[in-house]
Amino acid sequence: MAIDLNALANPGVTGLHPYQPGKPIEELERELGINNIVKLASNENPLGLSAKAQQAIQQATSDLTRYPDANGFYLKQALAEILRCDTAQLTLGNGSNEVLEILFRTFVSPGDEVIFDAHAFIVYALLTQSSGATARAIPSLDWGHDLDAMLAAINDKTRLICIANPNNPTGTYLEPEQLSAFLQQVPEQVLVVLDEAYFEYVPAERRAASVEWLQRYPNLCITRTFSKAYGLAGLRIGYLISSAEMAGLLNRVREPFNCNSLALAAATASLVDQDYVQRSVALNQSEMARFERYFAAKGINYIASLGNFITAELQPASQIYQALLEQGVIVRPIGGYGMPNHLRISVGLPEENDRFMTALEAVLSDTQ
Amino acid sequence: MAIDLNALANPGVTGLHPYQPGKPIEELERELGINNIVKLASNENPLGLSAKAQQAIQQATSDLTRYPDANGFYLKQALAEILRCDTAQLTLGNGSNEVLEILFRTFVSPGDEVIFDAHAFIVYALLTQSSGATARAIPSLDWGHDLDAMLAAINDKTRLICIANPNNPTGTYLEPEQLSAFLQQVPEQVLVVLDEAYFEYVPAERRAASVEWLQRYPNLCITRTFSKAYGLAGLRIGYLISSAEMAGLLNRVREPFNCNSLALAAATASLVDQDYVQRSVALNQSEMARFERYFAAKGINYIASLGNFITAELQPASQIYQALLEQGVIVRPIGGYGMPNHLRISVGLPEENDRFMTALEAVLSDTQ
Repeated sequence: MAIDLNALANPGVTGLHPYQPGKPIEELERELGINNIVKLASNENPLGLSAKAQQAIQQATSDLTRYPDANGFYLKQALAEILRCDTAQLTLGNGSNEVLEILFRTFVSPGDEVIFDAHAFIVYALLTQSSGATARAIPSLDWGHDLDAMLAAINDKTRLICIANPNNPTGTYLEPEQLSAFLQQVPEQVLVVLDEAYFEYVPAERRAASVEWLQRYPNLCITRTFSKAYGLAGLRIGYLISSAEMAGLLNRVREPFNCNSLALAAATASLVDQDYVQRSVALNQSEMARFERYFAAKGINYIASLGNFITAELQPASQIYQALLEQGVIVRPIGGYGMPNHLRISVGLPEENDRFMTALEAVLSDTQ
Repeated sequence: MAIDLNALANPGVTGLHPYQPGKPIEELERELGINNIVKLASNENPLGLSAKAQQAIQQATSDLTRYPDANGFYLKQALAEILRCDTAQLTLGNGSNEVLEILFRTFVSPGDEVIFDAHAFIVYALLTQSSGATARAIPSLDWGHDLDAMLAAINDKTRLICIANPNNPTGTYLEPEQLSAFLQQVPEQVLVVLDEAYFEYVPAERRAASVEWLQRYPNLCITRTFSKAYGLAGLRIGYLISSAEMAGLLNRVREPFNCNSLALAAATASLVDQDYVQRSVALNQSEMARFERYFAAKGINYIASLGNFITAELQPASQIYQALLEQGVIVRPIGGYGMPNHLRISVGLPEENDRFMTALEAVLSDTQ
């Protein structure tokens, strides 16, 4: 029996890159014959889990034979209080990746166009492709969003505009007044998702009052995550804030048990552990300043970042990536983001960043 | 600014039922003024977590600031060994619900038809609807699948047939030879998903060698879950077994971090805790026999079940459901499954089942 599965697949699916199975770090260490790999590749919180999250996980573990609370009752209550919104405005997801997927599944169809920056979070392009829609990747301006060009790209087919702020992998930031002026010019039938995965790392005085904007712009929604400053990447929990009407549609598409019980418990507990978040942000700020001084001293071009990572021009990037890996330091090549001459380095603990800086010096002196 | 979000939503989305926020049991207990609710509503494993899973969770918790292994390396290795398949044939999901969703997102489009039993797992209907496809719900035969009628319903538009075996919420079972004869008659371009969520509860001598069938039927795939006999419903982990070619397509659509770290660790550990699975299955068998004797003695019609639940004719079902709830026993009304005169009761611990039986007697004597 012969069967052409590619021919049966939905529009867009076969255009996705085939999945590349990776290996756990332990397997990589075995292959390389080392045992102290430093991972600065996924913009994770290097401080380890918040103590309150850890306690919440221990308490919730005994109940794991039960399905999770399909509504995320306690987490939504805690979020609504902090965000000053209604629980009906919230959609919880298995990481903010999944709330973005739910957004696409609810609103984006074949024939639609989706606008995003040419160096934006790669999930926007993947979801556009798997929705069978057409991507309009707008060239950046100094590695940041060119909002005027994005406005000019809007046409009758435009269904959604994705903006990450700060942007990953560049770390660039749009100030609140820039975004506000942009939103005023977006036609109401065009949805805008503001991806604030790195929101907590932005200094308070530069943050947008984006949740308040929802009242003015019913086509706006905001995504945030517990994977970065809240240190829960391994548990998968993120959320989307929107009008209650939009959340009503998204929650029809959402699988009822999409958020696991430990993620719900740990996220709820983490929200009250603001001390952990503050320590995480403070560590990031001081180490980011050190990265900037380091790159400046070495004459390496870098992109000023408000995230928990910094992207630097390091050529030839793939060789430098590989050489760093052999020294036990994993960073992120971002050729897939249209930046083949850069590497993205997550800000780690001081000693982890030392490892990177020492390794890079060794690698660069080898290649010169 | 006015905006008609319903008009912007994808085909099928507005036809989904609006999401009904539920309440956690603790909130329900507060409202009802009781504190000992017994939940026999979600076909969960009443034994609590496997000790090996609990240990694995504790060991993996310290690493939760890191993203999960996107490939589920260790779990796939363990599964492939037990299932005697290749790791490339596996797709892991956030519960088997998500692997079903990935299957639909990969292969089902507006205009396609999806065939399933009229009293099948409700997720098939929801995913068909949210895919913008057309459902062909085939009337049951003695509450079980009418395979001849399903074959007769196949036409040029048929993309997928969903068969749950044992079926939820009826517990009915198709013997291997019935299924095998059916698969021989399904045209190769029509995909078949065999949902074996309750596989472990089927006596060994009546189980299908379904994984071996994959070699003969490249249009077949099988889903299983850790939510039932493995007792990990709260962590969300399930999987799909198929040809490597089909898995390659599904894994393109899958979000890389769809399975959380603790689910991966706990599932891998649970696979070696076969003692836990055997105790779970043995408890289910002895208590199922007790349910059957109970219903027979009371003259209540029930559907013989090979799952970890039993469905009985109890009219008026909605009033009996409510009266049981007020006595602190939650069962599952299944009007949404086209069975408004039945209630589904999950098989719990002996003392939980006692609570149900006592409560039902009180309720029935009240209503007579």
